[in-house]
Amino acid sequence: MALGERGGWDKSESRYCGVETDFNDDMPHLLSFNLSSGGFDFVVASLMDPNYRPSLMEKDIGGGSHVLPFAGSDLVLSPSQWSSHVVGKISSWIDLDSEDEILRTDSETTLKQEISWASHLSLQACLLPSPKGASCANYARCVNQILQSLNNMQLWLRIPLVKNDDDTTDFIPSVSTVTYAQILSWRIFSIHVYSRVRGDSWELWNSFRLLCEHHSQLSVALDVLSSLPSANSLGRWLGEPVRAAIIHTDSFLTNARGYPCLSRRHQKLITGFLNHSIQVVISGKLNHGVPSVSLDSALDHTGTNVESSQRHSLRPYLDYIAYLYQRMDPLPEQERFELSYRDFLQSPLQGHNPLFHIISDEFCTIEFSNYYLSFQPLMDNLEAQTYETFEKDSVKYIQYQRAIGNALVDRVPDEEASSLTTVLMVVGAGRGPLVRASLQAAEETGRKLKIYAVEKNPNAVVTLHSLVRLEGWEKTVTIVSCDMRCWDAPEKADILVSELLGSFGDNELSPECLDGAQRFLKQDGISIPSSYTSFIQPVTASKLHNDVKSHKDVVHFETAYVVKVHSVARLAPCEPVFTFTHPNFSTKKSNQRYKKLRFEIPSDTGSAMVHGFAGYFDAMLYKDVHLGIEPSTATPNMFSCCASSSVCFVESYFDTGLQIPAWFAIFFPLRTPVCIRPGSPLEVHFWRCCGSTKVWYEWCVASPNPSPVHNSNGRSYWVGL
Amino acid sequence: MALGERGGWDKSESRYCGVETDFNDDMPHLLSFNLSSGGFDFVVASLMDPNYRPSLMEKDIGGGSHVLPFAGSDLVLSPSQWSSHVVGKISSWIDLDSEDEILRTDSETTLKQEISWASHLSLQACLLPSPKGASCANYARCVNQILQSLNNMQLWLRIPLVKNDDDTTDFIPSVSTVTYAQILSWRIFSIHVYSRVRGDSWELWNSFRLLCEHHSQLSVALDVLSSLPSANSLGRWLGEPVRAAIIHTDSFLTNARGYPCLSRRHQKLITGFLNHSIQVVISGKLNHGVPSVSLDSALDHTGTNVESSQRHSLRPYLDYIAYLYQRMDPLPEQERFELSYRDFLQSPLQGHNPLFHIISDEFCTIEFSNYYLSFQPLMDNLEAQTYETFEKDSVKYIQYQRAIGNALVDRVPDEEASSLTTVLMVVGAGRGPLVRASLQAAEETGRKLKIYAVEKNPNAVVTLHSLVRLEGWEKTVTIVSCDMRCWDAPEKADILVSELLGSFGDNELSPECLDGAQRFLKQDGISIPSSYTSFIQPVTASKLHNDVKSHKDVVHFETAYVVKVHSVARLAPCEPVFTFTHPNFSTKKSNQRYKKLRFEIPSDTGSAMVHGFAGYFDAMLYKDVHLGIEPSTATPNMFSCCASSSVCFVESYFDTGLQIPAWFAIFFPLRTPVCIRPGSPLEVHFWRCCGSTKVWYEWCVASPNPSPVHNSNGRSYWVGL
Repeated sequence: MALGERGGWDKSESRYCGVETDFNDDMPHLLSFNLSSGGFDFVVASLMDPNYRPSLMEKDIGGGSHVLPFAGSDLVLSPSQWSSHVVGKISSWIDLDSEDEILRTDSETTLKQEISWASHLSLQACLLPSPKGASCANYARCVNQILQSLNNMQLWLRIPLVKNDDDTTDFIPSVSTVTYAQILSWRIFSIHVYSRVRGDSWELWNSFRLLCEHHSQLSVALDVLSSLPSANSLGRWLGEPVRAAIIHTDSFLTNARGYPCLSRRHQKLITGFLNHSIQVVISGKLNHGVPSVSLDSALDHTGTNVESSQRHSLRPYLDYIAYLYQRMDPLPEQERFELSYRDFLQSPLQGHNPLFHIISDEFCTIEFSNYYLSFQPLMDNLEAQTYETFEKDSVKYIQYQRAIGNALVDRVPDEEASSLTTVLMVVGAGRGPLVRASLQAAEETGRKLKIYAVEKNPNAVVTLHSLVRLEGWEKTVTIVSCDMRCWDAPEKADILVSELLGSFGDNELSPECLDGAQRFLKQDGISIPSSYTSFIQPVTASKLHNDVKSHKDVVHFETAYVVKVHSVARLAPCEPVFTFTHPNFSTKKSNQRYKKLRFEIPSDTGSAMVHGFAGYFDAMLYKDVHLGIEPSTATPNMFSCCASSSVCFVESYFDTGLQIPAWFAIFFPLRTPVCIRPGSPLEVHFWRCCGSTKVWYEWCVASPNPSPVHNSNGRSYWVGL
Repeated sequence: MALGERGGWDKSESRYCGVETDFNDDMPHLLSFNLSSGGFDFVVASLMDPNYRPSLMEKDIGGGSHVLPFAGSDLVLSPSQWSSHVVGKISSWIDLDSEDEILRTDSETTLKQEISWASHLSLQACLLPSPKGASCANYARCVNQILQSLNNMQLWLRIPLVKNDDDTTDFIPSVSTVTYAQILSWRIFSIHVYSRVRGDSWELWNSFRLLCEHHSQLSVALDVLSSLPSANSLGRWLGEPVRAAIIHTDSFLTNARGYPCLSRRHQKLITGFLNHSIQVVISGKLNHGVPSVSLDSALDHTGTNVESSQRHSLRPYLDYIAYLYQRMDPLPEQERFELSYRDFLQSPLQGHNPLFHIISDEFCTIEFSNYYLSFQPLMDNLEAQTYETFEKDSVKYIQYQRAIGNALVDRVPDEEASSLTTVLMVVGAGRGPLVRASLQAAEETGRKLKIYAVEKNPNAVVTLHSLVRLEGWEKTVTIVSCDMRCWDAPEKADILVSELLGSFGDNELSPECLDGAQRFLKQDGISIPSSYTSFIQPVTASKLHNDVKSHKDVVHFETAYVVKVHSVARLAPCEPVFTFTHPNFSTKKSNQRYKKLRFEIPSDTGSAMVHGFAGYFDAMLYKDVHLGIEPSTATPNMFSCCASSSVCFVESYFDTGLQIPAWFAIFFPLRTPVCIRPGSPLEVHFWRCCGSTKVWYEWCVASPNPSPVHNSNGRSYWVGL
């Protein structure tokens, strides 16, 4: 039973809610009580008696092989029950970094035995207890060994969501002085100790995952406590592989009617988690005097002796999470169609030929062309389907029409409107959308227009001719089937219109194309766009990092990807990178660029991991008419989903209702992620390099620690001239 | 003409001394003056007129192609003259990180043109001017591009040997405020500005080489100035790829007779450089009133207008360097034979079968077996040649004989010497050296002995039988052809003698072997060795790092190598890692080990790069008789070359005089070198892991920044049981 239905389109994991239980050797009862009676979707349950210690066992039984104290056999549940409804909870007492060698050895043995058992049961995930002290190297070494040969199971490392402002860099739970004997005597190592944790628990996670080399099966389960760190500090986690948020009942408030509820900050956090496919798990005892329900055995909430017909004591907490889930704003239609594009790398390296991709996951299958993302704009010709994609971007052409209209009015005073004819050239006319926008702008402003539509793709020219014939534009529009870089124009233009921008502005060689085309622009002529600027910002993006890393080569780490960034943490505001202005009649102009950038993360963020840079553009079409995807300037009515979540440019796929995403962000990865700390700025260098046959970017981090220069000589990623 | 002859065995580059010259377009004259008349071996000479600026050229000549202002054609010297006697000096005025875009662009163009010209001439090296400011990212990006497609030429980045104690981390030469116009007006960008440099120039080098990703063709030329940083700070450079030391005449003192000489600290430094194949280059003007030689044109020292028959004004400096060179202590004979082993990785991965290696360079060819370095001690049998190597280690067997003698005397009081027979077992007897040492110890102490010589290699047993027959030991020695782990001994031993130690002590499975063998040792019996401990220390070792990196895989970075470490910087004293004691009759014993280590570098070192860890061992044979290669305890009379230079264990190859090295250090690399700073300790974790079929090490850095755990599950490197 999921948290609810949101129009049927939300198929993410976060629909499901779990409950953390005590150890219970009657697993079938535990499951039926918590699922059927409690309404939860899965349990996070201990698999082994918490009193078990390998070192004690050996004393009792001697050298021979012996049966481990597991909770029954694997037969007590069906395979699908095990894998769908049980997350294994590794014994909380384990401490692999204890000074006590016996505890350390017992812990390693137990951890390996329990994971092995969970693998045998084909569980989807196991919850690993939080490291007990500031040091986690031996724990990480052991988990890393396990990860090397693990089946598909995820390991969720439990991390308390704690960042205290006392700037103690060490993370030291107060439990570190507890002796082994004391821990032995506890049935469950209570998560309450977290409330006394000092420092920043992100540091602990960061050490652990660095030691495990960003392993893709190692993820995080965050313990959400009653007090929350700052918003900037919380934001870091959206770029980390968080799979679950464990909310303790202590963290709930009580509303006027006696029911549990969450503070506004908690609500916002949980909603954010649900929007990022992070599952909620309820943990703890009933803490709220929920009225009018029989709660005789409320404290025995995990159900050992409770009739399954009885209402589950944690049900009110689940109901509240379901309420939050159902209350969430529905996603705009286009965002829903883009769900499957989220954090999906679209590589410009996938070839110069059109490629059709099947993105498929458990929820949906969408077929689309990513050709327009990977094509070499000057070397290759577009396909019809790609034109289809471009042309459907109605918001874009409305902006163009507005810009052209303003330019026409500036160029031709009202009194000369009927006498003066403006010469306008569309360079890269494709199948004609800018020709249409130009004609509409002329009509709107009452100006006379003569259009040259220059297009190098002979196939598009066929359609263009047909369009002109159909629309009866023969007298106004001259079609030129030619590469704009070598066309010998019969006259000079007043206005040069083009749409050659990529996600990073100049990355589809707009500068080089327009340099070639401006020969036939009058000295006082107008280029639309008149300028464009690229922007970057550092991001935590562990999903993207792991996807790039999975190729196991340097080439993929030196490539920029088009991607709908969603599960990323934007660590600092964007900074501008390269700007190009058109026309540029300077004799010494160069399209090489070099920019040094500095980013400073807010002091309350804590340290954070930079996996790479999200890149955007903003273009000035004409005067104040702009077009762009830079989060802070992308206007909401222009973009379906702006700064708050993702940056993209979407339009309706007319009658079918099918949506095609356009202009996602670009992502520049770093071969080795860089950890940055407040007060120690991140210095980044970006180069746009031009050779005789290609254009490419190089980038590096210079501070706090220098990285290699990425993509030297464009060895991994380039755009052909 | 080299600096001199040192018995003919020193074939290193450092025999040759160069001189830095001004630009001179008469290269043949420049060469003959400095070589024939001056006595230098090579010149470091500018290749292009220092007044040339690409941006000015274009104005003068216009768009067409034009001849660059090179110093004549390539025909003025023969190809071998160019490559043997000229190091190209890149124009000193270039500044690729200037705020001035024209200067930056001019600099990039010039740098590429000059390197291209130097490549055309097949020069062996070019000297790159020192970065002008604290930032070097654009310079490094450009050099990195050049390195991607460079022929065999080395690029020497000029770095002033400066570390001021004011702890200014930025390296800012005072020249940073100089304008482009000013620089244009200088003929040579004088190195005198270095004397005003602040901070630590190592940081600049470190940034540059990190940006260029430790490229193997990028190296350092150090400018040695009149004042020197602390010894610890200087020591760092021995692990860096320093190719040349440029000594300015200003740095020389004047002796009582008016001749130039160096301070004691400078002498020590230069001697150290000469001992590490670092070439000396003299730079500057005659600064010393050298008597009795005609020096009319002393100031025009680069010889443009000086008769070649005239004495070169810098000759006294060269003579002094030659004096230092010739005065150096001759290397002990065994060290000379080991020259070709220096910093040469011997991989235990080279297979389980015997491998014979040819090490060859321009100076010498030596054939040797590194089988004993790579064999799997329990899985494989040794070859005769390997036994030969082991047995010739006379110092080792003298120590064994001493230890056995002491043990015999402790075990049997003088009054029972003739009645009591001690049972001694040699486990891993090989061809008998320990049998011989035992018998000699018995004779020396007057004790009666019964020996069992246990050996699993049937081929060695053949020789052993023959030895026993030849020596007439039949009554005392029983040969057992059996693996010690499964032998069923007829009686228990008083003394168990073995020689199973590797460079890292336990790395050839001595613990596992002796655990198996101690079954037949009496409860109060003695094991020789009685204990052994491994040690590590962090080192800068760029040569080793690059050799490991050249394999382009993770496996080689997760492997420990046997290596005669020479060009390394030992950054901190050794710390003990694992200790094993024998016999160990505990029922709960395990040969798994885990050690957390902390290293702190001296505060006057400055920051340093850790490429990995040098590992050693020390074994207690019996009571105070020890054997080991740990630098601080390796006794000089036991080891040919102790702490000061390299750690090794050498013996004479009897009649031929051929020397075979034994027991070099072990080297554990780091996949990503770690930069450490004083006050921020390096925390390292080492594990010895035991599986059912193999034993392996894992290691990681936990602080200042966590590294991945290396060699998880022994995936890259292991020793088979």
